Amino acid sequence: MKNEFEWIRSISPGFHYHKEVITGIGDDAAVVREKAGYDTVLAVDTMVEDVHFTKETMPLKAIGRKALAVNVSDLAAMGAVPLYFIVSIAVPKSGWTQEEIGEIYSGMKGLAEKYPMDLIGGDTVSIKEKLVISVTVTGRVEKDRALLRSSAEPGDLLFLTGKIGYAAAGLDRLLKEGKQAWDDEDPFIQAHQSPDPHVKYGRGFVESGKRIAANDVSDGAAHESKEIAEASGVDVNIEWEKLPEVDRFAFLSDEKQEEWLLRGGEDFCLIGTASPKTCAELEERNLPLYIIGSVAEGKGRVWLERSGRRSELLGGGYTHF
Amino acid sequence: MKNEFEWIRSISPGFHYHKEVITGIGDDAAVVREKAGYDTVLAVDTMVEDVHFTKETMPLKAIGRKALAVNVSDLAAMGAVPLYFIVSIAVPKSGWTQEEIGEIYSGMKGLAEKYPMDLIGGDTVSIKEKLVISVTVTGRVEKDRALLRSSAEPGDLLFLTGKIGYAAAGLDRLLKEGKQAWDDEDPFIQAHQSPDPHVKYGRGFVESGKRIAANDVSDGAAHESKEIAEASGVDVNIEWEKLPEVDRFAFLSDEKQEEWLLRGGEDFCLIGTASPKTCAELEERNLPLYIIGSVAEGKGRVWLERSGRRSELLGGGYTHF
Repeated sequence: MKNEFEWIRSISPGFHYHKEVITGIGDDAAVVREKAGYDTVLAVDTMVEDVHFTKETMPLKAIGRKALAVNVSDLAAMGAVPLYFIVSIAVPKSGWTQEEIGEIYSGMKGLAEKYPMDLIGGDTVSIKEKLVISVTVTGRVEKDRALLRSSAEPGDLLFLTGKIGYAAAGLDRLLKEGKQAWDDEDPFIQAHQSPDPHVKYGRGFVESGKRIAANDVSDGAAHESKEIAEASGVDVNIEWEKLPEVDRFAFLSDEKQEEWLLRGGEDFCLIGTASPKTCAELEERNLPLYIIGSVAEGKGRVWLERSGRRSELLGGGYTHF
Repeated sequence: MKNEFEWIRSISPGFHYHKEVITGIGDDAAVVREKAGYDTVLAVDTMVEDVHFTKETMPLKAIGRKALAVNVSDLAAMGAVPLYFIVSIAVPKSGWTQEEIGEIYSGMKGLAEKYPMDLIGGDTVSIKEKLVISVTVTGRVEKDRALLRSSAEPGDLLFLTGKIGYAAAGLDRLLKEGKQAWDDEDPFIQAHQSPDPHVKYGRGFVESGKRIAANDVSDGAAHESKEIAEASGVDVNIEWEKLPEVDRFAFLSDEKQEEWLLRGGEDFCLIGTASPKTCAELEERNLPLYIIGSVAEGKGRVWLERSGRRSELLGGGYTHF
């Protein structure tokens, strides 16, 4: 196979969207120029074959697209404009063709064109068994305006910018049915295979100039609420009946419903808190929210109100291992 | 095992060396502030168990230290000051204990203290078989002063900032003898296990204000020379007898000598070119160089002069796959 630079060059566009790229791929490291008045935001996320995807659960392009999307979602949760990405890929010595790896890159490229983002570096290594894709992204946000999870205050409303439980439902079907379940029109399958990062919301929140706490729902609404509660020193209350389309999951056991909706993870919308006044203003700015609960004085706990009972959600959501 | 943030927090110092870290570990992404007048330099390198290291070839701390060092070396080759790093680690479901992973982090931390660099983010995922560590680093270099491989000109001298062939020699012994070969005093073993990035040289080159082309020797002197030759549109001549301590490898066959010294890779000193006048000035600045050849007009080729013969080095050095 080609060496890493020839390889990465061969799948890169011959230009950069951002003139601030001084040196992209092809030297020891990339060099970029920052814009005055902005902070730099960085995140990394890794996807591993047979843990986060298989060739049965995901089309190749979707694997690449999602590897970038989950990182862009982290930028969205900070309110940043996505700018650059770096890809490190460990390719198994057998079982993967160069064409298949090309498909993965082409999926990344598709999403990158949207924002747009420049691929500015990478590393290609070999591995014995399973494919590993690690993507690092950077973006920028106006100085001191990053959306922090420590900004929640008692009296705030808890909101979602999208639906939850969809990705878990999609994965469940994909694990049971494999490729037969692939369906470009099925919102559950699409939520797992082709999540859309909520950059529009993140940027809208920053541009509003208001105090807003935000996380993306990558590790499940319970876990992400817990992080906001702990970082802000407040308690967060989730009202079950207010969760979007909760009836859609009524065919499941109560336990399974809570697993998919609250601990499922991989729903890449944002969860956050803001004052009722700010929430109303955001709606006016064409950023519709699902209000699903509220913030009270407390000490970092998350409560679930359901069927007249109030219970503390312990431990949070999805953890790796 | 703990979730990723608890885990990363548990091995992080409770402070940042750099006050420009606005948000480190613990939110969706890190936020850092750039300094006016500087460009940002970014690189990523991945190390895979059984490809780049095994528990037989490397002590655990050395695995972590090297995963960071190879990235810092890329920053050095650009002349940048190392600042931040982000770690993505895929931990096998069996065969690795939490304590062992802790040792790896502790090796990174040791090197990070030296520069100093702040750990500002990360991702921990599980994998079925083999450990994968992917490190992203960022640094800064004075605006427009990054050391590019495209700066070589006819009449330049070709130099090394350290010895080559050592890492290949060390790895050869480690693959044959395993842990028995571990020796903190053996320069070959140390070159493989604990490479020192040449940050002092990279910074010295930038501070000199002179035109200097540079690469690190990570993929072998032949390959790195080829990259300089191609990027600069010149030919590069390597004189075998001028390679540092070349006699030390005389016990090997000619072919093996060239493999270790020119195509071995993983020697993390710098290779570069500068005018004879600049080379003399660098020596005066306490940056001693091994002059190993010269640059001539040409079209991106690398020549080796040895025993009265001149041959073109094709293909370059180590390529992955």
